[in-house]
Amino acid sequence: MEESTAPPSGRTRVRRHPERARYERETVRAILDEGLVCHLGFVADGTPFVMPTMYGRRDDVVYVHGSPASRMLWTAARAADVCLTVTLLDGLVMARSAFSHSMNFRSVVVVGRAVEVTDPDEKRLAFEALVEHVCAGRWAEVRQPSLKELAATLVLRLSLDEASAKVRAGGPKDPEEDLTLPVWAGEVPLRVRPLPPVRHQGLPEGVPTPAYASAYTRSGWTA
Amino acid sequence: MEESTAPPSGRTRVRRHPERARYERETVRAILDEGLVCHLGFVADGTPFVMPTMYGRRDDVVYVHGSPASRMLWTAARAADVCLTVTLLDGLVMARSAFSHSMNFRSVVVVGRAVEVTDPDEKRLAFEALVEHVCAGRWAEVRQPSLKELAATLVLRLSLDEASAKVRAGGPKDPEEDLTLPVWAGEVPLRVRPLPPVRHQGLPEGVPTPAYASAYTRSGWTA
Repeated sequence: MEESTAPPSGRTRVRRHPERARYERETVRAILDEGLVCHLGFVADGTPFVMPTMYGRRDDVVYVHGSPASRMLWTAARAADVCLTVTLLDGLVMARSAFSHSMNFRSVVVVGRAVEVTDPDEKRLAFEALVEHVCAGRWAEVRQPSLKELAATLVLRLSLDEASAKVRAGGPKDPEEDLTLPVWAGEVPLRVRPLPPVRHQGLPEGVPTPAYASAYTRSGWTA
Repeated sequence: MEESTAPPSGRTRVRRHPERARYERETVRAILDEGLVCHLGFVADGTPFVMPTMYGRRDDVVYVHGSPASRMLWTAARAADVCLTVTLLDGLVMARSAFSHSMNFRSVVVVGRAVEVTDPDEKRLAFEALVEHVCAGRWAEVRQPSLKELAATLVLRLSLDEASAKVRAGGPKDPEEDLTLPVWAGEVPLRVRPLPPVRHQGLPEGVPTPAYASAYTRSGWTA
């Protein structure tokens, strides 16, 4: 079933290059699911800070987590709003002119209130979302979080209610008069790819390397 | 010659995991030079926004650019301060417990005032830094920016005076009592790698594909 298109809020409406905007929830989810790191923006004493961190998605909620001693998370939890951005870089766009160089990317911007998750059941589900986001299938195999570990983790929830995506794809957009210049132009596609996994020292020899590590892949990755 | 270590400012001092902090200017520069996209944070009407954008470095200055109609850039130029963050994701760290999962990364956080570049000579140098950042050697081959294009570009300069880097490397840090669990643990290294370049439609057949496109590489990339 097609997801209905959410009307863009004023804060996440794409202003520059509105033709690159995508407001369908499915597009937002797909970009979030393919990404690995988000950049969390929050304001502390009037200064904006942007920190990279792990995240996980469950339905239309994104979770971030960290130490209860994290200034980033407490500031984010106390702030009126935060901004969470995920960017997938798809390629370099080389134009005939310096001016028209660009990049192909897919990004999601989420703005909203980051709320501390205190309910133990939701906290556990957030943990699962975070681990499964790193590696699908991993949650069922690892030691589950203890009550002490859950208490030692601050988890924040951010709704996707105010979210938008932006996508640029394709070649350079040189002006017509540049098209005959003898300058190579095109795209260099970029992909994130895994190297062979590195077993942790001291891992018992009898423990096999799981397929999700030896052939790591993600939602959205194609061969 | 070794670069002297700048004392960390209060705003860019690494608070969580201070053992991962790197304040040497050379480390900051190397991470900036390897990265392709930065995340620029600025405050608009009290809300933090985080936008992905291209950048270039020249000495101890980072440049970002865009349309003079860009809300992001004007807001950044008028704000007291912005935050520019670059993150290189080096790998996934899979621990025996859900709690200890992590990621290996190298990141740089720069905080400071983003100043509009109005001097035409510096604007041209900023353009060169932006194009050479995408692809070293490209600047000499492309059509140079016209006066009209320079006027149609807003360029902001951000000093590296307040910058710090953070680096996590290596395997999981499971607590001792987990080390005998029969759970695979280790690292899945990740790398950004190019696919074969896509020639732009209409490019004259006589224009050869340059080596920097057919074998694209970056400062910091190893085979």
